[in-house]
Amino acid sequence: MRVIETIADFRRERAKITGALGLVPTMGYLHEGHLTLVRRARAENDSVAASIFVNPTQFGPQEDFASYPRDMPRDLAMLQKEGVDLVFAPSVPEMYPSGHDTHIEVGSVTQRLEGARRPGHFKGVATVVAKLFNIVQPTRSYFGQKDAQQVVVIKKLVKDLDIPTEVVVVPTVREPDGLAMSSRNTYLNPQERQAALVLWKALSLAKEMFSSGERDAERFRGVMTSLIQKEPLAKIDYVSIAHPESLTELDRAEYGSLVSLAVRIGRTRLIDNIILGP
Amino acid sequence: MRVIETIADFRRERAKITGALGLVPTMGYLHEGHLTLVRRARAENDSVAASIFVNPTQFGPQEDFASYPRDMPRDLAMLQKEGVDLVFAPSVPEMYPSGHDTHIEVGSVTQRLEGARRPGHFKGVATVVAKLFNIVQPTRSYFGQKDAQQVVVIKKLVKDLDIPTEVVVVPTVREPDGLAMSSRNTYLNPQERQAALVLWKALSLAKEMFSSGERDAERFRGVMTSLIQKEPLAKIDYVSIAHPESLTELDRAEYGSLVSLAVRIGRTRLIDNIILGP
Repeated sequence: MRVIETIADFRRERAKITGALGLVPTMGYLHEGHLTLVRRARAENDSVAASIFVNPTQFGPQEDFASYPRDMPRDLAMLQKEGVDLVFAPSVPEMYPSGHDTHIEVGSVTQRLEGARRPGHFKGVATVVAKLFNIVQPTRSYFGQKDAQQVVVIKKLVKDLDIPTEVVVVPTVREPDGLAMSSRNTYLNPQERQAALVLWKALSLAKEMFSSGERDAERFRGVMTSLIQKEPLAKIDYVSIAHPESLTELDRAEYGSLVSLAVRIGRTRLIDNIILGP
Repeated sequence: MRVIETIADFRRERAKITGALGLVPTMGYLHEGHLTLVRRARAENDSVAASIFVNPTQFGPQEDFASYPRDMPRDLAMLQKEGVDLVFAPSVPEMYPSGHDTHIEVGSVTQRLEGARRPGHFKGVATVVAKLFNIVQPTRSYFGQKDAQQVVVIKKLVKDLDIPTEVVVVPTVREPDGLAMSSRNTYLNPQERQAALVLWKALSLAKEMFSSGERDAERFRGVMTSLIQKEPLAKIDYVSIAHPESLTELDRAEYGSLVSLAVRIGRTRLIDNIILGP
């Protein structure tokens, strides 16, 4: 496994690769969710690259860029064990040299849900992901369903700009009790860790309601909201039943609808989602 | 020479190409300026692609998108004669299917000169050129110095988004009397064609002043403006002495400074420029 810190060096290594290359873009502090992406990439491609870059431009001024967890030696050991070929781990000035001034706006799908609460977040995501695509030139790129809106935004970015990569979406990996894996779970104290289960409980309830034939989206939002409000450490940011591509809020829940939520547990903001289905 | 109208077909043909590929992006209605780009691309690459696409998103609502000159059969004959391998000539819906919603903003260099007079122009240019780069995946891309600010914007786009292509800038090609070649010259009646020479006269005067040791940028602007104002059919849009990368207006003209101007001749808006030098 080669660990590469500059764009020029990465391009040189990339040029040597023939066959399909899979890319797993990450912000590091890896967990089973990331490793599931890596394994999928490993199975489907001749070579696998992972990137580790905590991208400052996707964090708001009041958000956790500075405190976002980082552990490069541990991350590299985990990636090596999974048989990754190339790790791209640039510095912030390498990605954004002085005078960097170009940004990508993906439009209306970035204005809802996370985008509405985190202004500029998806502009930062779209821009850095486009840069990574241009540097790594992956045949396939792997993203987790956990960040449902990010998946929608990146698929739209790739489609609208004709970027030559196939976006592969991998199901959310959960702890045994249902909590979606996230690098931010590390912020939770034991009491908050328990309270955080309320996200999965609310999503599971939505799933049951749908199986029982409920279709009124406002009923879903109401019942999920009531359940979360019973948890004293939880504060709802949003509970949404939306169209899976346009992300517009729905009146009726349908097969394929995206049920997503953002909840603060103490000072930690968590997101999770499911797609309604059989 | 293959003429290809869809992105999917182009990707299939592109995949067969090994070695260096040069791209000449055009809006068609080709003239010697374009052919000079093609010849340079032909000399420097194993294969050459040209695109012909009048991009609606870079025209303002009051501009000449509908009336922009088009002559596909003539263009194709000219490209074939120059030994072009692939022509990409998509329709507007092929490039911008319903729901297209992603745009690239290149920042401060798009806000000056042409960008200040044509709001949204460079957003349209940057977005379509990024799409063409992603579809064609050229080793080298050829642009004319005639559109000086476009060259600055595209170089910045490529640098800031790490797009894997080399931008090659080719000197402006002129008629024997000095008028810069432009598809829009076809709009000029014989009287206007004569009046249009005032752009080149003003630039030539700037060149002479610089050779004579003049360095006060405001003197350049003043003398050029006076000269153009003597032409009754001409109406100045701007006369600029700017830094060649930041495009900020200068107090002192220097080697490498960009002298550019936009002038209306009757209803036709023409631009031209020179770089000050020995």
